[in-house]
Amino acid sequence: MIDKKIALVFISVITISTCFSQKTTKNIDSKIEELISQMTLKEKVHQLATQYPNANMRLGIPNISANECLHGIKMNHATVFPQAIAMASTWDLDLIERMGHTVAKESRAFGIHQCYTPMLAVVRDIRWGRTEESYGEDPYLVGKIGSSYIKGLQGMGDKRFDKDHILATAKHFVADGEPMAGDNGAAHDISDYTLHNVHLYPFRLAIEEAQVGAIMPAHHLLNGIPCHANTEILNDVLRNDWGWDGLIVSDNGDLRSLKRVFNHVPDWNHAANVGLEVGIHQELALFQGWNEQRMYGDNLIEAVEKDVVSEDLLNNAVAHVLKTKFELGLFDADVTLDDRFDVIKYPDNGEPEKVSQHDAEMFKKALYVGLAKENWKDIVDNQEHNDLALEVAHKGIVLLKNEDNLLPLSKEKSKKIAVVGPNGSAMRLGGYSPDIPKYYISIVDGIKSYVGNNAEVAFAEGCDFTPSIENIPEAVALAEKSDITIVAIGGSEETCRENQDRDELGLPGPQQKLVEAIHATGKPYIVVLLNGRPLSIEWIAENSKAIVEGWYLGQETGKAIANVLFGEVNPSGKLPISFPRNVGQVPLFYNKLQTGRPRDIYNSNPEPLFHFGYGLSYTTFDFDEPKLSKNTIKVGETATVSTMVKNIGNYKGEEVVQLYIHDKISKRARPLKELKGFKRVALNPGESKEVSIEIGTQQLEYWNDGDWKIEPGAFEIMIGNNSENLKKCTLIVEE
Amino acid sequence: MIDKKIALVFISVITISTCFSQKTTKNIDSKIEELISQMTLKEKVHQLATQYPNANMRLGIPNISANECLHGIKMNHATVFPQAIAMASTWDLDLIERMGHTVAKESRAFGIHQCYTPMLAVVRDIRWGRTEESYGEDPYLVGKIGSSYIKGLQGMGDKRFDKDHILATAKHFVADGEPMAGDNGAAHDISDYTLHNVHLYPFRLAIEEAQVGAIMPAHHLLNGIPCHANTEILNDVLRNDWGWDGLIVSDNGDLRSLKRVFNHVPDWNHAANVGLEVGIHQELALFQGWNEQRMYGDNLIEAVEKDVVSEDLLNNAVAHVLKTKFELGLFDADVTLDDRFDVIKYPDNGEPEKVSQHDAEMFKKALYVGLAKENWKDIVDNQEHNDLALEVAHKGIVLLKNEDNLLPLSKEKSKKIAVVGPNGSAMRLGGYSPDIPKYYISIVDGIKSYVGNNAEVAFAEGCDFTPSIENIPEAVALAEKSDITIVAIGGSEETCRENQDRDELGLPGPQQKLVEAIHATGKPYIVVLLNGRPLSIEWIAENSKAIVEGWYLGQETGKAIANVLFGEVNPSGKLPISFPRNVGQVPLFYNKLQTGRPRDIYNSNPEPLFHFGYGLSYTTFDFDEPKLSKNTIKVGETATVSTMVKNIGNYKGEEVVQLYIHDKISKRARPLKELKGFKRVALNPGESKEVSIEIGTQQLEYWNDGDWKIEPGAFEIMIGNNSENLKKCTLIVEE
Repeated sequence: MIDKKIALVFISVITISTCFSQKTTKNIDSKIEELISQMTLKEKVHQLATQYPNANMRLGIPNISANECLHGIKMNHATVFPQAIAMASTWDLDLIERMGHTVAKESRAFGIHQCYTPMLAVVRDIRWGRTEESYGEDPYLVGKIGSSYIKGLQGMGDKRFDKDHILATAKHFVADGEPMAGDNGAAHDISDYTLHNVHLYPFRLAIEEAQVGAIMPAHHLLNGIPCHANTEILNDVLRNDWGWDGLIVSDNGDLRSLKRVFNHVPDWNHAANVGLEVGIHQELALFQGWNEQRMYGDNLIEAVEKDVVSEDLLNNAVAHVLKTKFELGLFDADVTLDDRFDVIKYPDNGEPEKVSQHDAEMFKKALYVGLAKENWKDIVDNQEHNDLALEVAHKGIVLLKNEDNLLPLSKEKSKKIAVVGPNGSAMRLGGYSPDIPKYYISIVDGIKSYVGNNAEVAFAEGCDFTPSIENIPEAVALAEKSDITIVAIGGSEETCRENQDRDELGLPGPQQKLVEAIHATGKPYIVVLLNGRPLSIEWIAENSKAIVEGWYLGQETGKAIANVLFGEVNPSGKLPISFPRNVGQVPLFYNKLQTGRPRDIYNSNPEPLFHFGYGLSYTTFDFDEPKLSKNTIKVGETATVSTMVKNIGNYKGEEVVQLYIHDKISKRARPLKELKGFKRVALNPGESKEVSIEIGTQQLEYWNDGDWKIEPGAFEIMIGNNSENLKKCTLIVEE
Repeated sequence: MIDKKIALVFISVITISTCFSQKTTKNIDSKIEELISQMTLKEKVHQLATQYPNANMRLGIPNISANECLHGIKMNHATVFPQAIAMASTWDLDLIERMGHTVAKESRAFGIHQCYTPMLAVVRDIRWGRTEESYGEDPYLVGKIGSSYIKGLQGMGDKRFDKDHILATAKHFVADGEPMAGDNGAAHDISDYTLHNVHLYPFRLAIEEAQVGAIMPAHHLLNGIPCHANTEILNDVLRNDWGWDGLIVSDNGDLRSLKRVFNHVPDWNHAANVGLEVGIHQELALFQGWNEQRMYGDNLIEAVEKDVVSEDLLNNAVAHVLKTKFELGLFDADVTLDDRFDVIKYPDNGEPEKVSQHDAEMFKKALYVGLAKENWKDIVDNQEHNDLALEVAHKGIVLLKNEDNLLPLSKEKSKKIAVVGPNGSAMRLGGYSPDIPKYYISIVDGIKSYVGNNAEVAFAEGCDFTPSIENIPEAVALAEKSDITIVAIGGSEETCRENQDRDELGLPGPQQKLVEAIHATGKPYIVVLLNGRPLSIEWIAENSKAIVEGWYLGQETGKAIANVLFGEVNPSGKLPISFPRNVGQVPLFYNKLQTGRPRDIYNSNPEPLFHFGYGLSYTTFDFDEPKLSKNTIKVGETATVSTMVKNIGNYKGEEVVQLYIHDKISKRARPLKELKGFKRVALNPGESKEVSIEIGTQQLEYWNDGDWKIEPGAFEIMIGNNSENLKKCTLIVEE
């Protein structure tokens, strides 16, 4: 009887496997079949674990060791790159792919095979604490940045999942980026129309363009059904419509939540069953251990014993996990099972007393089961990695305001430099950073290092995020006697993080008072923001002359900021998300559908403070009217839109040319503007380059009534350097 | 050819008509058939007008004269009742039905046959300017209050549409109460699940319980499709699923918006066609006139001529309008067409120089075509109407806080009374009020009248809604020398109205400063709020001892407030909508679905300031544990839940006993609490009464996958006097 079931399971495994030759696949399949036939029920259930892997030692089955790679592998001493929202601000797909590959190499060095990264949420409510983990508010940008990162993490073609690449996990499936009132995990209600066009879209790109290998369901109710029990999205869309067959990993406790939180099922056994029925293969925390509550694994064993769950379903999931382990090369290790025990040790320089219990455990586990490389330090301590982190930081910085060309700073005139504010010297890395990064260059250290002996640099914190204002006068006094003051403010991991949202978007603590006090001195100052989400800084936008948005810039923060402030690097980042004037404007995003009545807000301005795609440069770029290669195309054909971009300023620089379209007449209303392409171009002063962007199916289609299609008609084609500064032409698409 | 088409049309009219005997229906149908056969194309199109009715004079067809009855008929000298949100705060269905009947009588006196009332929006974003026009945030309460008002307006049974009743128009169909960021007319995206359970629900009750005769589609895009072109809601749900066959009226310009705003159709003719295809019968503004733009009527005539619209569709709509005119008795008038011309005059006491052009036009039109009654003044100037307006005001007032039993005021100790604040003497009636109400008793006048010669009452405005604070000291000085100060603050038609939303929910202008200044005197004061939406008054809730929420209380405002302040009336209103602490909490409503992660807000409290169903009394009511008549029922059966309510305080008073349920295990998650019943009970001190509420299909069913059904299982039954103070028991429902 059991053999028949297993045979049934393997038919599906064979038909879907695409990464191995027919011969190899057959070998792997028989190996999997053989392994499962030898397993006890408990061992099978343990295959679905991402914790407590030792139960598989009897059969010599390696564990998949997983971790987070939001902006670098979350292991101590790893390279820390800029936070996700800063990665998106680069609008540089090649750069993000290179970053992904570097992160994968470091991950493998630490013995990590899988990451629960990237987060592909399209963020439409920035009160949400996880905004910083996102690539912003636009489905296309999120999908493109996310896909590029996945390509780098996983590798493409022959390199996919090789020993320098890891398995990426796109999350959270789906529509967690629009939580009501910003509440993490808020129930979300949505039509199929917006689900497909907005929230599913980045996942579709991640699958079509980057073949992402794993997906994690979201934590919330989608239209009243928990995402972890939602067969419409996990089966109908993901597997049936899209033909995807990767690994589905449940987050900590989300399968238990089917009973505990949502009452979706009558008991724990049914929760386990629903998880397998919708095709979830793994659960992060499987058995009792670091959590007092009854875990998924116990429930699953009992459910199989009670016949609530069919062993077929279990075998299917186990087979999928084993297949993934083969794909990741875990069975190809040159070490024996015994060898693995030998490498259980903690690195000498790990400073264990400063290391969190969780990180220490992670590393031990990595060395234990993950085939961590003994030369991990040589791999991670690589100048190329640091240079790449710096490049991402440079390109992720967004210049929001620069009145009177206050920036770049003159080296001659800046002999006494003040740095004030809670983000001037503190380490600000954002969520999912290692406790101990490779290093961190603070803003004050970065500036000191840049100016060397040519200027004095002094720091006064002024305030932190508590209400205390007693240290503001010290900062003011410092500013008074300085040539220029850098006001380093914003947020921190304390004020913007997972599982903590905000109902207010102003600067936390008395930072606004600090800025006003510095402003009142009349001396020149630059506002430098480090934070995880847009803040409502209307007063600063109106009163301060220069504003630099850095998000979190990783280990090179201070170096990147100094390079931009002094003009070594001309800023070129663009906002991947709109800045509201105040929290009462949220949800605010550029690609809303048209309202049926004119917008009028009592005593206020409905426009954003800084709009999507916005970002200044030290130079000025001029755009010609856009030209189409053809004014009319048929559905399925492509046209090219071109514009001549000229650097008419005095600095060399890079510009991000952005393409937006508007499907003018459609069965369902489309946004007045949708980002559908972008290109970075580097220009010396006086130089011109023609930038061309192709307009094809990806630009013109939208989802309606069950399918993606192009509706013939007129499309407005808009090109420019942000979502407001655009020149237009019209493309006719015929049947 | 034309005869065949008409015949086809009338088959459907005959089969659906329910308000006339078979014989009468036949007579009416042949009359309609005859009329249509005599009409020119232009005359047919004019039947779809609600303006410019003279085009029908040739055939002697009367016009339907329509107006707004949001809280009284919007005609000068009419009785002005409390605003809709205050009507909902009464939780008194019989009262609201009586109010509706009174409004209908006055409407008929003014020659009005139809009102574009009630608004059945379930309001989930109080930034929306139309919040005041609503019955709050709960689908059941909105549906019940709305249905009661409709019953009163239209009459039931034999009295339906008689000469003392009018045609009600439920609006806006559908889901306009959850506009993103509160923007009026914002595109709304929603699943069928929430659409049916939340936003369609009040309309379903209005049809099932009150047989509402007309519906107005909403102004926004619903899932990317304009509501005015949305066959899924207008045909599939409204006509096919619900079997409703009333009149569908488009709002000003909304059919033109299909082209002008939404680009849903390629040209104006197609916009006209779509309107008829989805079954819209009337458009408020039909031809060019008060608006420069090309109107629906012109487009429709051209569309028929060009064969874009079939004349069948047009005839169908015309027949429906004529049928409505017969139902409303407009053809039964005792006056000839010529008589109607004789009554074109304006009432002597109309003070035309103060009357807006629009209102003057409305009245002229009413007298002209609407068979206005010459004795209209006798009908409207009726003390019973005023008494009823006062009763609604009394029961609509919500006591939010009463520390140290500061209220009711002692007549003995209140010899010098100060009234301060912008709402102390100004007329605050809310939107859709006549320019000239019958009268308005301000708060200061109401208090003066109440205390007579027994106390001095003085007024100082202190501030208005502009930023000016120069008059605050005058108000403070007055408070200093008074025994008690009434701080009358809140909003106005300027700060809360249709087509103007807010991105902030604090008290407009310097009112907060005014309260703080009065508070600083240390003298006792009462905060009385008049406003159209909940305001974020966290400081006041924490610091002020007594808060009375009045919304807008109609012509009797000051009298009702004085009666409550001095204890002539014990307040018994309950909030139909939650009060947030700050705008960043919005959308905030009590019946959200469970979040998948714990809620944690940085430096803030996620709970509302005052929750749904909340409202204090001068006495205290005690509730026994609830008892069920049966602990287990089968699907389709009913049970009764009872609780003994005892007045254990010193004042007689009324309490609103509220029933909430929680469907504990369901295929789709249900809110943790859903209001499903309520009853008002009046109790003298020491008196007890048992209150019983039936639990049947309406309490237990919910919509899922295409239908309303009860899922067997455990239901938590909760009873108490607000949505937080509840006692529980469990009802088991079996298959």
